[in-house]
Amino acid sequence: MLKITFLGTAGSLPTPYRNPPSILIKKDSELLMFDCGEGAQQQMMRARTGMMSLSSIFITHFHADHVLGIPGLLQTMSFQGRTEPLYIYGPEKIDVFIQILTALGYCQLGYEIKTVELKPGDIIEKNGYHIKALKTEHGVKSIGYSLVENKRPGKFDRDKAVSLGVPPGPLFSKLQKGNPVEVDGRTVHPEEVVGEPRPGRTVVYSGDTRPCEDVFNASLEADVLIHDGSLDDSQSEWAAESMHSTASEAAELAKKAGVIKLVLTHISSRYTEDESPLLNDANEIFENVVIADDLMEINIPYKK
Amino acid sequence: MLKITFLGTAGSLPTPYRNPPSILIKKDSELLMFDCGEGAQQQMMRARTGMMSLSSIFITHFHADHVLGIPGLLQTMSFQGRTEPLYIYGPEKIDVFIQILTALGYCQLGYEIKTVELKPGDIIEKNGYHIKALKTEHGVKSIGYSLVENKRPGKFDRDKAVSLGVPPGPLFSKLQKGNPVEVDGRTVHPEEVVGEPRPGRTVVYSGDTRPCEDVFNASLEADVLIHDGSLDDSQSEWAAESMHSTASEAAELAKKAGVIKLVLTHISSRYTEDESPLLNDANEIFENVVIADDLMEINIPYKK
Repeated sequence: MLKITFLGTAGSLPTPYRNPPSILIKKDSELLMFDCGEGAQQQMMRARTGMMSLSSIFITHFHADHVLGIPGLLQTMSFQGRTEPLYIYGPEKIDVFIQILTALGYCQLGYEIKTVELKPGDIIEKNGYHIKALKTEHGVKSIGYSLVENKRPGKFDRDKAVSLGVPPGPLFSKLQKGNPVEVDGRTVHPEEVVGEPRPGRTVVYSGDTRPCEDVFNASLEADVLIHDGSLDDSQSEWAAESMHSTASEAAELAKKAGVIKLVLTHISSRYTEDESPLLNDANEIFENVVIADDLMEINIPYKK
Repeated sequence: MLKITFLGTAGSLPTPYRNPPSILIKKDSELLMFDCGEGAQQQMMRARTGMMSLSSIFITHFHADHVLGIPGLLQTMSFQGRTEPLYIYGPEKIDVFIQILTALGYCQLGYEIKTVELKPGDIIEKNGYHIKALKTEHGVKSIGYSLVENKRPGKFDRDKAVSLGVPPGPLFSKLQKGNPVEVDGRTVHPEEVVGEPRPGRTVVYSGDTRPCEDVFNASLEADVLIHDGSLDDSQSEWAAESMHSTASEAAELAKKAGVIKLVLTHISSRYTEDESPLLNDANEIFENVVIADDLMEINIPYKK
């Protein structure tokens, strides 16, 4: 399973319908959180994601709207009896930042917080995938993230295996796992019946940023790119000044990188009533784009 | 106007439907906030209360669920162009606490925060009312608050004024304001036509506490008592241990104090599905009780 749940999709100011930024990715049985805006814990409750399988929080930068949900979430997990350590990754000084945050609620946590400082290019190896820190451009210490699954085994050619005399059953499994098998005194090699390894899935989250090279490179043929799409074309100067991206700029990058699906988030509160300027701008450049909504879920299939 | 809006009514753990504790009181054109749990700013947006007339935040104690909404709210008001200073009242060390909170979001506020440390018995005099800090019992430095309006002028006896020869018009107004008037060479004194001063309205907020003397005394004939009613009778031992109150205990206090309306809040997350144990327990003792819900509003009329 690879499922994205948008907990908060607002820009710097929340609205009645958009919480501050936070994204949850369910990778098999593990929950990973990217940014943790105010109210993230309550959004997890609303989305019924559970909290106990949350292994890590990845922070893009320390602006208030991206981090103020951390202390409440930490405390609630402690109240609920968490004992597993929690990893919190982020840019330089993440350790100091979390020390201040956790000092706030006069709260004794029943589990350990392990902070890990990341710089662009750092890779966190996980079981069957990795997460990479990307250089972004937001005027403060900031990073984006890509989640990249390992390649998965090639397609098994069942008909060919049978034609080579391999009986369906345990020998199929052995071949699929890359081992040769003996049939009627002859050796069948896995490369005869198993195709090329197939790509895993890739999700990229830009955080708050101007369009930038590292996010572009990570997004080449990505399955989903979640990109800052704060503003419409009429606000392009302000987007540059405030170090955000317009919907068009995100769409340009997605198109050039050949991503499958673009999701715009960090939506400015000026679009509470009508988001169509953003969608229209992006759609003129790139077709498969959606504007994230709070509690929206996206299941990512394998490429065909 | 004296209107209460419940922004958050949860106990230590929020639920999908209850935000952490925060209460807003609109006193004429001024907004006063009591506690500021995570998400308070967004609840203000949902309740359409505005933020610019918020003059003061009154904190009962520093447990995380009562304060984590402060930094986000402060930042949002700054983004919205606030320049008026904001007063934040609370127990001992409120100044240190707010310094840490405001350091978090790397945020430059465009207005001044004035912190004021209160101890039980302290009174803040306002225009036409005062707010008093109450001693509460929650196992940490904590205070409750009462908002007490000044007495208002007595009832004007229009018929009697006419019978004394006073013509309707400016002289009525002069008498109502407490000044004598001359009519046909005779002096009519205000006490002849204006009744005894009538009581203003009183609202008491206990914060988190065991039932206690200072809240009881402040609640004598209060119009509204907002009291910790975290737990039902079956949890009375845990209420005592965790320094909260049961619904019954709050109802007993309300009854003895002769309050008009009791509102239970800080509702434990165990009652997400069914709050009836709380309401039933309280109703056996006291009739006019409601369980606060998020975004519930209560307009407080003058006593007849």
